[in-house]
Amino acid sequence: MNRIDPPQRSLLGPGPSDVAPSVLRALAAPTLGHLDPRTLDMMRELAEMLRAIFETKNPCTLAVSGTGTSGMETALVNLIEPGDRVLVAVHGYFGARLAEIAQRVGGDVTVVEQEWGQPSDPAKLRAAAAGRKFKVLAAVHAETSTGVKQELAPLSAVAEELGALFVVDAVTSLGCTPVGVDRARIDVVYSCSQKGLSCTSGLSPVSFSPRAMEAIARRKQRVASFYLDIALLERYWHGDHLYHHTACSNLFAALHEATRLVLEEGLEARFARHARLSKALVAGLEGLGLELLVPAHQRLPQLLAVKIPDGVDDLAVRKALLAQYSIEIGGGLGALKGKIWRIGLMGSGATPRNVLLAVSALASVLGSHGFRPRSEALAAAGAALAS
Amino acid sequence: MNRIDPPQRSLLGPGPSDVAPSVLRALAAPTLGHLDPRTLDMMRELAEMLRAIFETKNPCTLAVSGTGTSGMETALVNLIEPGDRVLVAVHGYFGARLAEIAQRVGGDVTVVEQEWGQPSDPAKLRAAAAGRKFKVLAAVHAETSTGVKQELAPLSAVAEELGALFVVDAVTSLGCTPVGVDRARIDVVYSCSQKGLSCTSGLSPVSFSPRAMEAIARRKQRVASFYLDIALLERYWHGDHLYHHTACSNLFAALHEATRLVLEEGLEARFARHARLSKALVAGLEGLGLELLVPAHQRLPQLLAVKIPDGVDDLAVRKALLAQYSIEIGGGLGALKGKIWRIGLMGSGATPRNVLLAVSALASVLGSHGFRPRSEALAAAGAALAS
Repeated sequence: MNRIDPPQRSLLGPGPSDVAPSVLRALAAPTLGHLDPRTLDMMRELAEMLRAIFETKNPCTLAVSGTGTSGMETALVNLIEPGDRVLVAVHGYFGARLAEIAQRVGGDVTVVEQEWGQPSDPAKLRAAAAGRKFKVLAAVHAETSTGVKQELAPLSAVAEELGALFVVDAVTSLGCTPVGVDRARIDVVYSCSQKGLSCTSGLSPVSFSPRAMEAIARRKQRVASFYLDIALLERYWHGDHLYHHTACSNLFAALHEATRLVLEEGLEARFARHARLSKALVAGLEGLGLELLVPAHQRLPQLLAVKIPDGVDDLAVRKALLAQYSIEIGGGLGALKGKIWRIGLMGSGATPRNVLLAVSALASVLGSHGFRPRSEALAAAGAALAS
Repeated sequence: MNRIDPPQRSLLGPGPSDVAPSVLRALAAPTLGHLDPRTLDMMRELAEMLRAIFETKNPCTLAVSGTGTSGMETALVNLIEPGDRVLVAVHGYFGARLAEIAQRVGGDVTVVEQEWGQPSDPAKLRAAAAGRKFKVLAAVHAETSTGVKQELAPLSAVAEELGALFVVDAVTSLGCTPVGVDRARIDVVYSCSQKGLSCTSGLSPVSFSPRAMEAIARRKQRVASFYLDIALLERYWHGDHLYHHTACSNLFAALHEATRLVLEEGLEARFARHARLSKALVAGLEGLGLELLVPAHQRLPQLLAVKIPDGVDDLAVRKALLAQYSIEIGGGLGALKGKIWRIGLMGSGATPRNVLLAVSALASVLGSHGFRPRSEALAAAGAALAS
């Protein structure tokens, strides 16, 4: 077997995003044991930085040793006991995944569907609840499959009416757009390391409110998962550090550096950067003659869903972008497969250089794949960058 | 927050073990998307190398995106439906963890306990089964908490008598001592990346026999975990690569390099190296006047449990080894806490240099912590290395 030699990509899909050189250097720093005092120090600092980025005071804030989906499962398997009523707002692929996991862990799940490409409507959730109490209301803040932004405050109000714990998927929002966990009165939030935080994947930052931890302490049955048992994880991270699993110090070091970069830039500056570069990318894409799936006021700046023009071969274009320019963009998921591309400008990847690269590469590739791009795209993107 | 700067350790505990420089370089190679054709190629090669190291033809061989404990949970949550009878051989901390997870996922669990420091006795398992059929028989091959080696063939015979699927924990054996999955007629095996394979932690190699996959296909209930659903993982790895989770290309690259190094050395040569260096370490430790917990014929070469001499402070010695020599060794778990140290020579860490380092550092530190080491230790280790 030959040594592998991964090429340099520009990661402009729905994640992973481009990783900063200093994060890769931290990843490759010497490995430490999972109970080494230096590892425990690093975890304490990492948790502190995650609290700042989540904008929460929750003591139980840590990184689960798995991807964002493991964070989703951590949220649900700890909160839900068999038969518990769970209300899930579904307006895309990841809302549907929330509902599926809630069912797998034994929840009595009510799904409220909204057309993909729109946010969920609080009135519909209220109507579906029909006056009943619920244990959990779960929703996706930034729907990765459609690029739709969900307003959290109205859903938080619904959760309160239902007596429900409010669970929020912040996989594609954290580090790109404000989550504001305490402000939005979120009880459990989870995210990932490889999008807005621009680390590699492999860790899932989570935060549980004291109210959520109390509900878990009152469970009648043990949590079905040992690996994702939040009380055991909390004890390993912030208690007496009792051994639970052999956490990866290299991933912790990388996420430590990635979160440090987020806070060094500052949350407000980072959100403004994402908004500004997204506008430039939109100007460029519309300049090419492409249409976006989501109206501007409901759109995530960090992830744009672009309609694939009639007659253009989805896969052929993505393959050409990868082969000719080493650029990754995402295809559609589920109902939107073949209908949209997903172009992400996240974290370290949200740069003026990547805006021009995305627009010019699409112009180049689309021109030989049955679509005639309008000529003003680069000028439009450039003007937006200069403004 | 300051940049972290992890120091160089010699990792001579129960894992993680020393990571080769080329593995750390692979870890820090450019990040790829989880559906990038280059990632999928890397996964195919990685699975092929894992099959060679497990010594299996099982098509369903892959690496779960989590640590060894996630592999343990993957084995059990996929095989066990609520009420299924499960027989667990417990002779240490990780056997007890197997039993706990089997219970959490709803199994009707019969635990057969053996004193820690000994292997489980097939006759006791047979007696506990009392003629009943079982869905699963689970046992730990290399008990990380005691350094005891379990013979697999006699347990495999018991599993066959009970009509049970045979589940084996190879977390501390893979890459150090032969597992021989097909030879031992194991149905489900799981391991980790950070011990005998000398990668960082974060991945759990698993292999499911066709018979196990058929049993899973016949389940009445869905698997309670989405993240660890082996049918979905198998489809992502070896089927149509349907998106399941955002796997970490950097961890895959590191494990690809680590497994490549294992096969470049050759399994037989690697096992012989572990056996030879272990003998030298035993000679050195006994030369110091220390006693081992496990008799030679039941001992794992890669992980030695050393009795802490009377009057010696466990934690003070381990802290001194770390502070003075940047050497990590392990303490005892559960019932053996404060009674043993665990010294590992695994994978890239199984070197003559580390044998001498462990013996001389212990001699140095013990001398100032209430134990008078005998003087012949280094000579004994050296003679064993030269022989």
